[in-house]
Amino acid sequence: MTDVAIVGASGYTARELIQLLLRHPGARIRLATSRKDEAPRLDALHPSLAGRIDLACEPFDPDRVAEVARVAFLALPHGASMAAVPELRSRGVRVIDLSADYRLVDETVYEDWYDHPHTDPSGLREAVYGLPELYREAIPGASLIANPGCYTSTSILALAPLVASNLIERSGIIIDAKSGVSGAGRSPKLTTHYPECNESLSAYGVGRHRHTPEIEQVLTGVGRSAAGDPVEVIFTPHLVPMDRGILATIYAQPRGAVTEHDLLDLYREFYRSSPFVRVVNRLPSTKDSAYSNFCDLTVRVVRGRVLVIACLDNLIKGASGVAVQNFNLMTGHPETTALF
Amino acid sequence: MTDVAIVGASGYTARELIQLLLRHPGARIRLATSRKDEAPRLDALHPSLAGRIDLACEPFDPDRVAEVARVAFLALPHGASMAAVPELRSRGVRVIDLSADYRLVDETVYEDWYDHPHTDPSGLREAVYGLPELYREAIPGASLIANPGCYTSTSILALAPLVASNLIERSGIIIDAKSGVSGAGRSPKLTTHYPECNESLSAYGVGRHRHTPEIEQVLTGVGRSAAGDPVEVIFTPHLVPMDRGILATIYAQPRGAVTEHDLLDLYREFYRSSPFVRVVNRLPSTKDSAYSNFCDLTVRVVRGRVLVIACLDNLIKGASGVAVQNFNLMTGHPETTALF
Amino acid sequence: MTDVAIVGASGYTARELIQLLLRHPGARIRLATSRKDEAPRLDALHPSLAGRIDLACEPFDPDRVAEVARVAFLALPHGASMAAVPELRSRGVRVIDLSADYRLVDETVYEDWYDHPHTDPSGLREAVYGLPELYREAIPGASLIANPGCYTSTSILALAPLVASNLIERSGIIIDAKSGVSGAGRSPKLTTHYPECNESLSAYGVGRHRHTPEIEQVLTGVGRSAAGDPVEVIFTPHLVPMDRGILATIYAQPRGAVTEHDLLDLYREFYRSSPFVRVVNRLPSTKDSAYSNFCDLTVRVVRGRVLVIACLDNLIKGASGVAVQNFNLMTGHPETTALF
Amino acid sequence: MTDVAIVGASGYTARELIQLLLRHPGARIRLATSRKDEAPRLDALHPSLAGRIDLACEPFDPDRVAEVARVAFLALPHGASMAAVPELRSRGVRVIDLSADYRLVDETVYEDWYDHPHTDPSGLREAVYGLPELYREAIPGASLIANPGCYTSTSILALAPLVASNLIERSGIIIDAKSGVSGAGRSPKLTTHYPECNESLSAYGVGRHRHTPEIEQVLTGVGRSAAGDPVEVIFTPHLVPMDRGILATIYAQPRGAVTEHDLLDLYREFYRSSPFVRVVNRLPSTKDSAYSNFCDLTVRVVRGRVLVIACLDNLIKGASGVAVQNFNLMTGHPETTALF
Repeated sequence: MTDVAIVGASGYTARELIQLLLRHPGARIRLATSRKDEAPRLDALHPSLAGRIDLACEPFDPDRVAEVARVAFLALPHGASMAAVPELRSRGVRVIDLSADYRLVDETVYEDWYDHPHTDPSGLREAVYGLPELYREAIPGASLIANPGCYTSTSILALAPLVASNLIERSGIIIDAKSGVSGAGRSPKLTTHYPECNESLSAYGVGRHRHTPEIEQVLTGVGRSAAGDPVEVIFTPHLVPMDRGILATIYAQPRGAVTEHDLLDLYREFYRSSPFVRVVNRLPSTKDSAYSNFCDLTVRVVRGRVLVIACLDNLIKGASGVAVQNFNLMTGHPETTALF
Repeated sequence: MTDVAIVGASGYTARELIQLLLRHPGARIRLATSRKDEAPRLDALHPSLAGRIDLACEPFDPDRVAEVARVAFLALPHGASMAAVPELRSRGVRVIDLSADYRLVDETVYEDWYDHPHTDPSGLREAVYGLPELYREAIPGASLIANPGCYTSTSILALAPLVASNLIERSGIIIDAKSGVSGAGRSPKLTTHYPECNESLSAYGVGRHRHTPEIEQVLTGVGRSAAGDPVEVIFTPHLVPMDRGILATIYAQPRGAVTEHDLLDLYREFYRSSPFVRVVNRLPSTKDSAYSNFCDLTVRVVRGRVLVIACLDNLIKGASGVAVQNFNLMTGHPETTALF
Repeated sequence: MTDVAIVGASGYTARELIQLLLRHPGARIRLATSRKDEAPRLDALHPSLAGRIDLACEPFDPDRVAEVARVAFLALPHGASMAAVPELRSRGVRVIDLSADYRLVDETVYEDWYDHPHTDPSGLREAVYGLPELYREAIPGASLIANPGCYTSTSILALAPLVASNLIERSGIIIDAKSGVSGAGRSPKLTTHYPECNESLSAYGVGRHRHTPEIEQVLTGVGRSAAGDPVEVIFTPHLVPMDRGILATIYAQPRGAVTEHDLLDLYREFYRSSPFVRVVNRLPSTKDSAYSNFCDLTVRVVRGRVLVIACLDNLIKGASGVAVQNFNLMTGHPETTALF
Repeated sequence: MTDVAIVGASGYTARELIQLLLRHPGARIRLATSRKDEAPRLDALHPSLAGRIDLACEPFDPDRVAEVARVAFLALPHGASMAAVPELRSRGVRVIDLSADYRLVDETVYEDWYDHPHTDPSGLREAVYGLPELYREAIPGASLIANPGCYTSTSILALAPLVASNLIERSGIIIDAKSGVSGAGRSPKLTTHYPECNESLSAYGVGRHRHTPEIEQVLTGVGRSAAGDPVEVIFTPHLVPMDRGILATIYAQPRGAVTEHDLLDLYREFYRSSPFVRVVNRLPSTKDSAYSNFCDLTVRVVRGRVLVIACLDNLIKGASGVAVQNFNLMTGHPETTALF
């Protein structure tokens, strides 16, 4: 049994995480923190948790976390996370950080895209990128996991087999991604006010979404063994009127002749040991992976282009589910515990 | 051609009103006001208006309104409206007020339900309640129209024939009402944040919604000729995950034996001269009256109770459409101009 | 470990049931049947099950079911169920029937509401109504469970404490119920075609929904000890544009003075041993019980009427979750196994 | 006043068309046809039309149509349309055909994509493609209009300025398009059953959607003056859980250096005389053009690629609105009549 803490308990990813951990036979939630003054009970923050956990939030105190927990899940905004992480690690707490703070290995890239300096560059260098399908070996020994972004996981899982096999051109990859509204977080704003975004569809952050450098960094790493070119993507996110789910439609230029059949085989082989990636023949629907830790994907060849279509639940496989998957690897549980 | 002003242009009812007036052959929008400092263009506030109207908002100035417009539509929050109305009326501008400020004839009732004193009691006494189906005679000569609430119109249109005919008990009437989210206005808040209210249904304001005294006041007036008892309702609003539409399911105790057939006849006769009330045999769906100025309703008898089921578009027939209907009556146009 | 069969695997309740059972440490799905000729795999019927279960459907054969399973869950249409049930029971298979076929104890009532004769009246007399909150004692020994309807469970859980305590009048109870669209099943038809029911709300089956006699029968039984009058309800279902969730707003006439505080206490006491009923102070939202086996409810007193507002997930607590709850009781597992 | 007939009145485009024509001061609906035996009233087919038009459908009879109408709008399935069109034209009725039957000028292309022979090749040669923004000159004199497809109009309006100006490569153009569910028509099927497609997103028809050759044919024609290469697109449609709206995100390779500013100027100039194309600076949302005849679009340059993002209401600007726009041009009305 591993005692865990939830640091930053008020958002959607924290709620999903708590629900998953309550099903986990080897995890016990000992502490939850919130910046709210009134120390709300978890079931006041999240009424769906009523009857399942009896815990009031506390203000964040690293000594207190270290006293009761061996692993901390951080669901804080970026910027806030890198303030808390060193405090926890110096007290021996292993950290799974769901923010963006430890995902970009180059701190200058972080500063370019997040508009503030990185205050924990040494942490940055020690963090392991928590995508088990690619880094299953490194995660068990990690003391700090940078849990991937939701668009990022979708895009990387969709492209890694092609990049690793050196089958596609590394620039000009187009990722047309579509996300449900929960990906925008829990703070009310006009763009996510129901009568504004319901029954509507739009692109946003065109050419400047912060998951772009993360996708490129990881895929460049994936491709390193095969060839030296960096991966460059054109990433276009869209807001879709639904709660959950991301679907990415990806267009790449093959370097030689390819067939759908061979590509599907390649993908199946690549993900043979990954229980949460389902390579399917049909065109996947987000609903079939919603509320699950699965990523569904397929491949098509259209007029000489390779299309990869991948989807997952942004709050589960795109955030809290993969966090539990990382936790499982870090604590010696089967990778799927609490996730089926 | 009547020159009109829109006072308070940033919300949904203002947007709908402008769209209707742009189709009106006898109305010209000369002025729109907004409390925002930057004097936004109307198509910046409401991108759907791009290419249809070329107007920048101004701060509210009663002299300026009186200079350019003969009729002002006020789409202000309650409280703000009763500050502006006397300023406009004293300058000779006729007012159609879409707020709640002039709907309750008794200022003490207003103060009980709205928690602040009424500052224009003389205006209150002169206002005509703008529900044309009941007050078609009084509206043409009015200088101040209190445009009805959305739940209110639905409930009153559904019950007026029964109350006027003295066919039901006047207390214990149950109005179980359901509304789309646009009825909650355009200010973002947690309850109307998309991931909170999408795919969810809940009651709210149980026993204390401010449309309760308005429904009771008008229906009591309707029933006055038939018998003296005040009407008393139990009004329960619900929030439904859709943009538009209100549906009220109403349960009343008949005073004697009734049949569906006779009741439908009664309703058809009652609304014979009302082009926007459609008495239907089928159970109405909100979608069939959405984006229109129609109110659809039907009647059923179940185990000795009378059920009335009525629906309308809360932003059109429940707000801006009926405002234009009132404008038509006030300016000598056919009641249906710009509304079909 | 109990071997189970799913008879009728193609609908939504079967899919939910399978997902719950796959998490159950004491159940093993050995067989699934489908009337489709092609013997589809479960993950072809339900792509969300891919990677979780490797099973192809078979045609229904009672010998085969009896050979491999000790408990059968039947998710067949009414009418079809009562043909299969005796075949299974005569072979020693315990049955949890999710259809309506064994819910009404009086076969003439069944025939009145379902328009065909009941062909297994002896089964009818032996069936135990599978609402654990009321019949927790009888379920463990049952060989045939009539799993309750979704509207029914919502309404009964909401009213049972009041009826059992003899606090309300037994006639004239109004149940204004609202359901998500999955309650209408998986067969495409115009009323559930997306562009018809999305963004729309309507009542349906007014005065003649088949859950009416079921609610009345069970509540009459609940009230029997307190007083002899049968319970009579006016039940009005509505279709709401969302996937899941039922919310019932119930209006009853108290027999004497009541307070919200005392009523909430009464409810908390009544459901003290029922882990899936959450008596809450707030007005519940369907979303907080969606995808869970909880029923959330609260009580209000408005103008001398008692209002009960109750909600649950129609596919889980309203169908498959309660089926697993019954299975747990029948097989000696804790009531909550696989349901948190 | 022009007398018109609606041939095939039961679908969504027919309903929208009738609503637009009821607002048209120069059109009178004299006849509507339906293949249904029972000759339903229009307001039985479409309850939203109650109180607006009093007409019962008739079976299709070309003599009868020719007797009462000078212009016929055909909202028939492809295949059925080319059977009716010659019958009407030979009787002197001008036809606006909303099906796909007359859109592809090369009948062998038609046969390849629609899997049956074209039975009216001479009609095919005389039809004018009804996209007023490109063919405003040819439409007034036409006796047969091939009204464009919804994805088609979106894509063509988005790309025509770039192709006409010879600014982009003509092959490898990626059109990632997303549509609301009404685009799938009114016949219930599993993919558009509410609980299947609500809260879900998926691609469909990848590489084989029938709007592909239509887009290519028209854009190739647009580009003919500038250079001879045919246009080739990779077109990927997606189904989005909303009623209305198409948004296309388009990726093209510029032939030389381009800037967003210059491209926006180019678009504004290209559509200077087109009142229904709004070139906007912001990223457009489908909701802002929903229920209108506008097409909103903008241009971005991202990492050397040109992105065009365009949207419109598939039932209005993508079908019935542009049909009325064509009608206006054919009958000498201002292009915008009944469409603002």
